[in-house]
Amino acid sequence: MEIESASDKKPGLLVRGWSWLKALPEKSKAKVIEVAKNVRKVGQDDPRRIVHALKVGLALSVVSLIYYYKPFYDGFGISGMWAVLTVVVVFEFSVGATLSKGLNRGFATFLAGALGVGAHYLSNLCGDKGEPIVLGLSVFLLAAASTFSRFIPGVKQRYDYGVVIFILTFSLVAVSGYRVDEIIELAHQRLSTIVIGGLTCVIISICIMPVWAGEDLHNLVAQNLEKLACFLEGFGGEYFKDLEDGEIVVVSKSGKPLAEYFRNPEDGEAAVVSKSDKSSLQKYKSILTSKTTEDSLANFARWEPGHGRFRFRHPWKQYLKLAALIRQCAYLLEALNGYINSDIQIPPEFQRKIQDECITMSLESGKALKELSESIKTMTGPSLADPHVENCKNAAMDLKTTLKTALLENSDLLGVIPAATVASLLIDIVVCTEKIAESVHELAKLAHFKTVEPTVTPEKSQLLHRGTVNPLAETDSPEVVITVSGSMEALPEGANPQAPVNGKHIDV
Amino acid sequence: MEIESASDKKPGLLVRGWSWLKALPEKSKAKVIEVAKNVRKVGQDDPRRIVHALKVGLALSVVSLIYYYKPFYDGFGISGMWAVLTVVVVFEFSVGATLSKGLNRGFATFLAGALGVGAHYLSNLCGDKGEPIVLGLSVFLLAAASTFSRFIPGVKQRYDYGVVIFILTFSLVAVSGYRVDEIIELAHQRLSTIVIGGLTCVIISICIMPVWAGEDLHNLVAQNLEKLACFLEGFGGEYFKDLEDGEIVVVSKSGKPLAEYFRNPEDGEAAVVSKSDKSSLQKYKSILTSKTTEDSLANFARWEPGHGRFRFRHPWKQYLKLAALIRQCAYLLEALNGYINSDIQIPPEFQRKIQDECITMSLESGKALKELSESIKTMTGPSLADPHVENCKNAAMDLKTTLKTALLENSDLLGVIPAATVASLLIDIVVCTEKIAESVHELAKLAHFKTVEPTVTPEKSQLLHRGTVNPLAETDSPEVVITVSGSMEALPEGANPQAPVNGKHIDV
Repeated sequence: MEIESASDKKPGLLVRGWSWLKALPEKSKAKVIEVAKNVRKVGQDDPRRIVHALKVGLALSVVSLIYYYKPFYDGFGISGMWAVLTVVVVFEFSVGATLSKGLNRGFATFLAGALGVGAHYLSNLCGDKGEPIVLGLSVFLLAAASTFSRFIPGVKQRYDYGVVIFILTFSLVAVSGYRVDEIIELAHQRLSTIVIGGLTCVIISICIMPVWAGEDLHNLVAQNLEKLACFLEGFGGEYFKDLEDGEIVVVSKSGKPLAEYFRNPEDGEAAVVSKSDKSSLQKYKSILTSKTTEDSLANFARWEPGHGRFRFRHPWKQYLKLAALIRQCAYLLEALNGYINSDIQIPPEFQRKIQDECITMSLESGKALKELSESIKTMTGPSLADPHVENCKNAAMDLKTTLKTALLENSDLLGVIPAATVASLLIDIVVCTEKIAESVHELAKLAHFKTVEPTVTPEKSQLLHRGTVNPLAETDSPEVVITVSGSMEALPEGANPQAPVNGKHIDV
Repeated sequence: MEIESASDKKPGLLVRGWSWLKALPEKSKAKVIEVAKNVRKVGQDDPRRIVHALKVGLALSVVSLIYYYKPFYDGFGISGMWAVLTVVVVFEFSVGATLSKGLNRGFATFLAGALGVGAHYLSNLCGDKGEPIVLGLSVFLLAAASTFSRFIPGVKQRYDYGVVIFILTFSLVAVSGYRVDEIIELAHQRLSTIVIGGLTCVIISICIMPVWAGEDLHNLVAQNLEKLACFLEGFGGEYFKDLEDGEIVVVSKSGKPLAEYFRNPEDGEAAVVSKSDKSSLQKYKSILTSKTTEDSLANFARWEPGHGRFRFRHPWKQYLKLAALIRQCAYLLEALNGYINSDIQIPPEFQRKIQDECITMSLESGKALKELSESIKTMTGPSLADPHVENCKNAAMDLKTTLKTALLENSDLLGVIPAATVASLLIDIVVCTEKIAESVHELAKLAHFKTVEPTVTPEKSQLLHRGTVNPLAETDSPEVVITVSGSMEALPEGANPQAPVNGKHIDV
């Protein structure tokens, strides 16, 4: 490479220019292909975007009728333009955003129009010389005050667009009023055309494949819970994989290979992500920066009427509280993630001792989160998650005991620290999972989720717990058929890992 | 309380309504006061907001002249309105945002106007019946395609507003062209008035107390570094405070009280935050969610011309890379923060053993970050931070040794885990600090920061390091005057903690 670049410099500008030109068609072809791929991906990621684009096109074409048909044109004249303008700026992706902008625009226009007419009459009283001064001053003061109000968080969040339109309309009415006498006629025309434009947007937005911000928020929160669950279910396998890969023969307490811990009790297939499936482990990263999206979705959702499974006053704020807890948990995962694939060598005996509890904690909190996600998705009570929460809390307590003995037996105490840190972070995650579960319970109450009878009674769950923490050590029975293969995707979406198999439930 | 609410229910609606009414004036007064306080805070937080509001008022008043003076009105007629419209929607807080919107609006209007005229001519060729169909179809297709393009990240980031204006202008020109014959005249008028409005905004925005997005980004990154530093400098005192508060007499290795470790070498006053000053410890939380702000500032900064200390093509992207590392560090602080004030009791002997290194690591990485922040603020080379980075790296290595002995000597191994986790997190933070330092070095190179001769030579820094890790144990000399009082604020902004005092540098 170095020789090439050295010879490149010698031939001078001309040759370089020529080679650049020669490469141009190829480069631009590559560029075009890249852009096309990019565009295709944007559409594939969310096909509703394509529908939205077509809806905007339709709304604009409809409103163009106002210009086209003579009766409309005679009625509104050049003001018909405001209908077109309204459609372009008001039509947003979600119904909530469209409604928010439309209502903001409508009310702001009305209010500013009325105020503008008032300012106009007031300035008329001040005589020919005073008129421009009064008008200029009123524009200056109102524009400055309104612009400043846009910095107030509450106003910015909900009425930002309304304030812009307020300034706009007031200035136009007040100043153009200075020339045009039929100012009330004009204001009336503008308001009617804006209402026509806005209504067109809202009707098309709601009637043709609507995109509800509330539903999006609901799904986003459920998805984020699932992303956490994905990481936690895969973490055990990923963190302790060196033991399996390495030359050390890994045997669990019961004498069975470690791999057996990764069993899905229902269908005998693997319940955790395969080792190579790392991308699903990294999904949680998007949660770290999703606050802005959640906030704006919640904000739009408040404008939306009842739709589908959501009533008008659905507790959207509770979703934000839940989302904050989820993000808190994601920060912990971020700390945990640093320990996967770290080069630090941990004494295998120690790792082997704590891995049962660590894997249980991670897997059970993952399952609890998955159940909570499922509960939100189906809008049924989250009671199915409770046994898992109990299990991981118990595993956390067991871990403390195990750690004590393991630390006493171990000689390389320094090497043990990273593994102990992982254990400690897992304990924090268990606490966080509990908080999330509480928050989902509260959401279920507020949003009147359907209640379901838990299939597992508390007593039984307690029994299951015993089977969970030291499962193979105590229940090393021959019925357990173990195959470890496949990945997370092999687990059917609706599968309930809580259901006992063949009367025997092994919940690791 | 319960008795009261019970008696509340009995008297029925009337009494409740009356008490509600009676409380109304007080309530609304409280509300008004609250809003006023809120508004005042918005202004106090950033007084440039008030200036911005006045600037917008001024720009609008200036543009109103277009309507007021007859010559202007005769020239532009009703199109003068577009100048007002442009000012309202284009004038943004920062110069970059205003320029971005103005240029987007100008170019989009020009392009869409030209295309609109083209579509108009094309439709004319299709006869009376074909004309509306061709126009409607072209509006539909262009609007749908443009709306879809707004979902492409690159377009959304830089040209979103331009696309909106493109759709708007194209629709207006194509459809209104169907009625008005003097379409080119109209397009010309609209473009001129938009240019007048846009230029007014840009000139006022740049000439009267300009707000530069680039400078804001620069300062934000420097501030965020300082927030990290604040936490790290205060963390040691906060985490190990129980030892000082409790009944245990805390004595460092050298026999001096622990408090002496918190000394600012320069002026003999305390260099770390006081225990009660917790709010400054929590400042870093804002970094966790600052990504959106940084991204938009970097985006606007690219539109800005050279200003002050920044050239036109200042490496704004490097700031984003640096900001990502800073956020990574903030996630670690978030994990660390959970251990402050946690109820877990840690064996004091163990805590005492590791605290020297932990405090050194935390303090030195804090100092390094503060130096890096200072380097960015003053735009000088970040070499002053290097010794601190070295110091904390060395302290991290020493900590490993100390941990080994401390763990061997300790009996309550389980209780030790949280403290060991804190130590481990601090080691991660040291690694992160090193990465941040590298990134600042790269930024300094790219942005041509002034180079400064490091006042401390590497050999000397090595010496300092020795004095750092076990400082009082080896250098327990009488010159060291120690007072622990005051808080972070007592440290002068520009103070350079690296400068030796009285020929003796104690760098803890």
